[in-house]
Amino acid sequence: MQNKRRNIAVIGSTGSIGRQALEVIEAQPDLLCAEVLVAGNNADLLAEQAIKFQPNAVVILNKDKFNFIKETLRPYPIKVFAGEESVLEILEWGTIDMVLSAFVGFSGLRSTLKALECGKPVALANKESLVVAGALLTQVAKKNHVPILPVDSEHSAVFQCLTGENFSEVQEIILTASGGPFRGKRKNELENVTAADALKHPNWSMGAKITIDSATLMNKGLEVIEAKWLFECSPDIIKVVVHPQSIVHSMVLFKDGSIKAQLGLPDMRLPIQYALCYPNRPLNDFPRYDFRTPNSLTFEEPDIQTFPCLLLAFDALKKGGNIPCALNAANEVAVDLFLNNRIKFNQIPEIIESILNNTFYISNPTLEELISTDFESRKKILKNIRPLQK
Amino acid sequence: MQNKRRNIAVIGSTGSIGRQALEVIEAQPDLLCAEVLVAGNNADLLAEQAIKFQPNAVVILNKDKFNFIKETLRPYPIKVFAGEESVLEILEWGTIDMVLSAFVGFSGLRSTLKALECGKPVALANKESLVVAGALLTQVAKKNHVPILPVDSEHSAVFQCLTGENFSEVQEIILTASGGPFRGKRKNELENVTAADALKHPNWSMGAKITIDSATLMNKGLEVIEAKWLFECSPDIIKVVVHPQSIVHSMVLFKDGSIKAQLGLPDMRLPIQYALCYPNRPLNDFPRYDFRTPNSLTFEEPDIQTFPCLLLAFDALKKGGNIPCALNAANEVAVDLFLNNRIKFNQIPEIIESILNNTFYISNPTLEELISTDFESRKKILKNIRPLQK
Repeated sequence: MQNKRRNIAVIGSTGSIGRQALEVIEAQPDLLCAEVLVAGNNADLLAEQAIKFQPNAVVILNKDKFNFIKETLRPYPIKVFAGEESVLEILEWGTIDMVLSAFVGFSGLRSTLKALECGKPVALANKESLVVAGALLTQVAKKNHVPILPVDSEHSAVFQCLTGENFSEVQEIILTASGGPFRGKRKNELENVTAADALKHPNWSMGAKITIDSATLMNKGLEVIEAKWLFECSPDIIKVVVHPQSIVHSMVLFKDGSIKAQLGLPDMRLPIQYALCYPNRPLNDFPRYDFRTPNSLTFEEPDIQTFPCLLLAFDALKKGGNIPCALNAANEVAVDLFLNNRIKFNQIPEIIESILNNTFYISNPTLEELISTDFESRKKILKNIRPLQK
Repeated sequence: MQNKRRNIAVIGSTGSIGRQALEVIEAQPDLLCAEVLVAGNNADLLAEQAIKFQPNAVVILNKDKFNFIKETLRPYPIKVFAGEESVLEILEWGTIDMVLSAFVGFSGLRSTLKALECGKPVALANKESLVVAGALLTQVAKKNHVPILPVDSEHSAVFQCLTGENFSEVQEIILTASGGPFRGKRKNELENVTAADALKHPNWSMGAKITIDSATLMNKGLEVIEAKWLFECSPDIIKVVVHPQSIVHSMVLFKDGSIKAQLGLPDMRLPIQYALCYPNRPLNDFPRYDFRTPNSLTFEEPDIQTFPCLLLAFDALKKGGNIPCALNAANEVAVDLFLNNRIKFNQIPEIIESILNNTFYISNPTLEELISTDFESRKKILKNIRPLQK
C-alpha cells in the first residue's frame, strides 16, 4: 500500500509554532509525518522531539551542540546534522513533501527561498520572509508552481475565505488585530511600560518577538505586507480592524457587499493544520469556539496615534523595493533592545522611522542586496543606541 | 453580439422579495433582465413594474384583475395572462433562464416544482416549498440537473461558506436568528402581545407572514427544515444560535474546528443578487457593513421555553413524510388568525402542536397527498377555532 502521509520538514521545531505543529502532526498520524526537524539552539528539546517523532533527520543550527545531539540520538536511526548549510542541502531531499517555515525573523528567509527553489510547497509561519523578500519569493514560487500556504491565523483566514471565490471580485481584505495588551492606552501611558507588561498578550500564546510586535501593532503591519504578497493585491484594499477577542481571524469583503469571515478559538494549531493538510480539513479534538454560551465580538478602528508602527509598515509597503526589508531589520533590532530593557517602548517606532528615512532605496533588490540592507540597518541602530536613561 | 443577460421570471414580483429583486435587476442591467413578472393580487403595482421593466409577459393570479392589467399595458408589447395555470405554462418558455420563486407559503410550491421540471435553475425565496415538499423538489432538481439557489439570507450565507469546500468535512451548520421583537421576554409576558407588536422586526424589513414567523422563531424552524433539504444533511448537524444584530447571516463549522461565516448588513438585496447572478459577485452600490465604527456582535442560545415553535419544527423534520407539510399548513393558518386578531400569540405553537399530533402519517407523500395534508390541516384548525376571548 502506498504511503499517503505528507512528510513535513519542520524548520524551527522547538519554537512556539514548531511545537504546535508537532502536536498537529501527532494528532494526524495517518496524514502527516515529521520527516526533518530543524532547531536553532534548543538542543535538549530537539533531541526530545526527535526521540518522540523519529524523523529521518534533525539539524541543529548551533554547531556547538552537534555532539550533544549526535550522542543523545545514537540509539536511533536518525541522521544528525548541524549548521544552516545542512538545512539548505536537506531541503533538496525527495522525501520531503512540504516545508513548514517557522523560524523567527530574517533568519527564516534562506530556508524559505531554498524550499521554494526545490519545488516544495511551503507552509509559511515566518512572515518576515515575505516582508523582506516578497517579490523574490512569490516569483520563485510561481516559477516552480508551488504554493505558499499561510500559517499566520489572519492569512489563513483570508485564504480560507477566498476558497472557491474569484479574486477579481474582492473589494477589501480585512485583517483583524487583537490590539495587544496596550489597547485603549494613550501614548504617554506607554512611556514606562516594561517588556514583562508587553509580553502579556490577552489571547494568543506566542513567542516573545511576535508578542512585542502585537503590542506595537507592528505585527499587523508586517501582516499587511505579507498579505500584499500572498494575495498579490494592491495595498489599498488591505484594511485593519481591531477585534480584541481574537475569534474572527480575518475577513474578505466582496464587490457585492458580502463579507466572508473565518472564526475559531485563538489556537495556532488550527491554521497550522489547515496549511499542513491543505486542502483537507481532517477531524481533530482541539477545543471548539462555542456560540451557545453568551458572548460578544467587538470591532473598532486601530489607534494609529498611539501605535504608529502600523502606518510605518503601510508606508514601507508603498515605497517597496528594499524598504520593507529595512523596516523589518529595524523592528527586529528594536524589539530585541526593548526585550533587553535597552530602549523604551515608544522608542521602537522612532528607531524604525529613522531607519526608513536613512535607507538607500533599491527598487528591485537581489537576495544579496536584501542581506546587505538588513545588515546595514541593524548596524546603524546598534551604533547609535545609547543606554536607557532610567 | 450575443445577449449574455440572464432572463429572470419573478414569481411574486409585488411582494417584499419580488420588489427587492427588481431593484437588483435594475442595478445590474448588463447581467439581469426581467423576462416575466407574476403577482397574486396587486394589479396596480404589477402594472407599474411592467411599464418600468418591460418584461416579455406578466401574469396576475387573480383573474378578476386581468382586464385592468390588459388595459393598462395596452400601449406596450407585453403579453398579459391570468391564473396559476398560465404561470405553469409560461415556465416552459425557452426564454426564461432562471426562476425566482418568491410567493409566500404553500402557494409557491406548484410553480417551484414546475420550474424545476422545466429544467430552470430556481432562486428560492419560498422556503415553504422545501419545508412541505423537500424530498420531491430536490429529487426533481437532481433529475433535471438544475440548482436550487437559496435566497433566504441564512441559507445564502451557508451556501457561500460552503463554496469551494468539501461537504463531508462539515461538522455543523449554524443558522443565526435575530430572536425577533420578543427576544428576552418570558412566555407570560407574551400573553397579550398584538400583531402590531409582533410586526416590529428589529432588523429586517420583510413581509407580514415571515415577520410573525420571526417573532415565534418558527421562521428559524422552517429554515432548519429548508437547510436539511438544500444541503442534504442530517438534522442533527443543524444548530440555531441567536444573534440579535443580524450581521452574521449564518455559519459553517468544519471538522477541523474552523468556522466560516458570511456577514453583511441585513439587506435582502445581497442574497437575492447572489442567487440571481450566481456564481458572480458583481459590484453594486448597496450600503456596506462597516467594522470601523465601534460595534458589537453578540450570540446566545435560543429560548425554546418561550418559543417552542423551533422545537416543533425540529420534531416535524425528524418525523419526516407529510408532517413538515402539516406543520407548515398549521403555521400558515395560525399566523393568519393571529394577524387578524382571532387568536393570541401563544396559541400559535399550541395550534401547530395539536395538528402535528393529529396528522395521519404518510412516509413518502406524492404532491397530491401533500396538497391533501395541507388542506386537511387547515380545515381542522378553522373548524375548531373559537373567537378570541378578550
